[in-house]
Amino acid sequence: MLPSSSSHRRRKFPDAARSSPHTHERSLIPVGMATILPRTAQRVRHLEAILLSTLGRWGYQEIIPPTFEYLDVLQAGLEPDLIEQGYKFSDRTTGRILLLRPDVTAQIARIVAMGMVGSQMPLRLCYRTTVFRHEPEHAGREREIFQVGVELIGIDSVAADAEMIALMSDCLEQLGLHDFKISLGHVGFFKALLAKSGLSAEGQKRAEQAASRKDLPHLEEILLKEQVAKIRARAILETPGLYGKQEVLRRGRMLAGRDPHLRRPLDRLTQVYELLTASGLQDRLLLDLGEFRGFDYYDGLVFEIFAKGLGCEIGGGGRYNHLIGRFGRDLPSTGFAFDVDRLFQSMERVDGEPVQSDINCLICSATDRPQDAFETARVLRQAGCNVILGHVFGTGSRARRLMREEGQRLGARVTVLVGGAGWSKEEAMILAPSKAASRTVKIKELPHLLRP
Amino acid sequence: MLPSSSSHRRRKFPDAARSSPHTHERSLIPVGMATILPRTAQRVRHLEAILLSTLGRWGYQEIIPPTFEYLDVLQAGLEPDLIEQGYKFSDRTTGRILLLRPDVTAQIARIVAMGMVGSQMPLRLCYRTTVFRHEPEHAGREREIFQVGVELIGIDSVAADAEMIALMSDCLEQLGLHDFKISLGHVGFFKALLAKSGLSAEGQKRAEQAASRKDLPHLEEILLKEQVAKIRARAILETPGLYGKQEVLRRGRMLAGRDPHLRRPLDRLTQVYELLTASGLQDRLLLDLGEFRGFDYYDGLVFEIFAKGLGCEIGGGGRYNHLIGRFGRDLPSTGFAFDVDRLFQSMERVDGEPVQSDINCLICSATDRPQDAFETARVLRQAGCNVILGHVFGTGSRARRLMREEGQRLGARVTVLVGGAGWSKEEAMILAPSKAASRTVKIKELPHLLRP
Repeated sequence: MLPSSSSHRRRKFPDAARSSPHTHERSLIPVGMATILPRTAQRVRHLEAILLSTLGRWGYQEIIPPTFEYLDVLQAGLEPDLIEQGYKFSDRTTGRILLLRPDVTAQIARIVAMGMVGSQMPLRLCYRTTVFRHEPEHAGREREIFQVGVELIGIDSVAADAEMIALMSDCLEQLGLHDFKISLGHVGFFKALLAKSGLSAEGQKRAEQAASRKDLPHLEEILLKEQVAKIRARAILETPGLYGKQEVLRRGRMLAGRDPHLRRPLDRLTQVYELLTASGLQDRLLLDLGEFRGFDYYDGLVFEIFAKGLGCEIGGGGRYNHLIGRFGRDLPSTGFAFDVDRLFQSMERVDGEPVQSDINCLICSATDRPQDAFETARVLRQAGCNVILGHVFGTGSRARRLMREEGQRLGARVTVLVGGAGWSKEEAMILAPSKAASRTVKIKELPHLLRP
Repeated sequence: MLPSSSSHRRRKFPDAARSSPHTHERSLIPVGMATILPRTAQRVRHLEAILLSTLGRWGYQEIIPPTFEYLDVLQAGLEPDLIEQGYKFSDRTTGRILLLRPDVTAQIARIVAMGMVGSQMPLRLCYRTTVFRHEPEHAGREREIFQVGVELIGIDSVAADAEMIALMSDCLEQLGLHDFKISLGHVGFFKALLAKSGLSAEGQKRAEQAASRKDLPHLEEILLKEQVAKIRARAILETPGLYGKQEVLRRGRMLAGRDPHLRRPLDRLTQVYELLTASGLQDRLLLDLGEFRGFDYYDGLVFEIFAKGLGCEIGGGGRYNHLIGRFGRDLPSTGFAFDVDRLFQSMERVDGEPVQSDINCLICSATDRPQDAFETARVLRQAGCNVILGHVFGTGSRARRLMREEGQRLGARVTVLVGGAGWSKEEAMILAPSKAASRTVKIKELPHLLRP
């Protein structure tokens, strides 16, 4: 659902470690494949959980598709570019080509067309997963891309189109990201202009690509080469610049005249825009008649979402009424996906705080016999505390210092020592920076002391 | 961390759809690759969430490794069998061979050896992910295997060994699975017996494999072929049968005599067993001196966990003190993994209830103008309700019936109709089976009515 942006990417997940494309040594990890380390992983999972919970509250149910599929099956729903970027290998049993999924929407289209999720429509499905694309090395983009996305299948309505935008918006609000814009377009308007112009199919395709890059000189060149009539060429060249508020629709209507092929996309776009405006989303919205997304399967309303300060979209989607049909069952649909990595980068800007550690207690043992510490940990866990067992033992000042350091490193609220010679089995010592400040408490009092 | 069991597998995730290896038609999905459908996906994610939360409370932090890596790097930590089962393809940039991970422990060993997670030990890491293994088709096993696992790195102690068992046990308790057994062994005992017997290295390896399958005739054949002395052969043949409680340790000690290579593993096993017994886990435990796991990298305490009614282990692990060293940094470690699919099957036996839908309300529109429904949904969501927008519109009895049916299918507590001709904007109708029983309420009262 989410094509890769043409803009260069920043470093994936700030503290994610990955191999650089520019080292001369033989790399230990394939370029573009990230290892997500604990601090970032915790925040990424937290972000995913908020997204999935929001989607769930709107009725979207998660589905987990397989990581690879047969290319000959899935290709019906994939752009040629995406197939080219796909990681392929042969199935040793059948000799058929397997493809690591470069896109989830095609998989879900296949799954729905096969009738695997029943026949009751509409279907609201969502997913959280990675897709794999062999991006050019110099682009500095990731090749394993984390996505969370949805599909609303079996219904073609203004409300369904608007639901996508309102839901994306709610997801971002739930994440605490309030500074974003959604650009809204309809591929039908520009496609109809091109069809009317008399351009060849090949010329139309190239013109769409040029327009999606807002590359007007190249667009002009294409139109000149095929000698498109001046008045039509002027409308085509104007369209990629038509973005803004209501006035875009007015200007569009002037270009459309009475042509129903041009008016119909504008009418739909207007209805969706009005519905979203009535829902208080007008400040979020930017109309863009040149909005195109990257995938050929879009054939209706399309949209992209931008967060402040990030030079590329953090998500997007649109209507694809004929994709599922390519797998043998015609069902109108719409959907979107977030790029979790980019979303994460946007979040870093608004919320630099790490997710809190909720480890209450590090339990250390006075001797190398771990029984007492193990038992204390068990009792505290039963009482609902989050406990880590320390590995340093002893009662001397060096041991105590190491214990406290470990406790701090782990974010433990207290570091506790048990099992000292002559101590009661019911007692533990809470270690403080000075020996004098350390105090002995009853173990059964610890759960109470550990509560925030 | 989790080798595939030699026992045949049952069908993955009960309502997961997958292609059968026995169809004659050209398959649409590769054999052994499952699509996990919403009802199951919800429960699998719920199960994963409980596991990860339990691991978090014991101080284990999630790490997300890349889906594929260079074979030449990762193979240092992989068994030859696992490399053979791995899905491989060439990297189009470097020409090097890429491998879809067949095991996460080797990846984490690589990550830790590279110093990517710092140098402070011990490290407590966990993961939830899939591994990929080309299992033989007739085995009916999955080829994309869902795992949740942990690694405790940088410490070699009785407490660390016992922590694995206590943590696995806590995970299952948290899931509500109380009927399970953990078999506990130490690869060092049997390895020392074999080393002492004068068997060739090749003979030792084959003897280990025979023992792990409890294949005594084959084991005897190996010993006979290399003319192992009778008294030594008898001890070797007796060992795979040594499973039970304390008496296993006593009998082991008799076989060990004064040999420190045999006594040391028994001493460690005894200490771990006693620590766990003191923690009240004795009823869970079964000692097994023939316990071997499938991976060559285990070199200490090993264990497997079995749930009642499932013919194969649902998880297991052990100590691998020399695996990380193969990547250039010697660090003792232990760890385990659960097979999420098998765990799920065990859960089905104890808890057939689906995770509850928490959709409160289906909002339907009296006309094809979705404004009122859209706005009502927005207001209710802001008030914390979980709302789905219906796609049927109208006020006639057929429309109402379809609306109520959709509401029931979605598990909505109520189905609500808004926007009827002449209705107040503040009013909605809660649809009941008969028109007479349907009642009009204020929209602002709905959040209150929808609370459980």
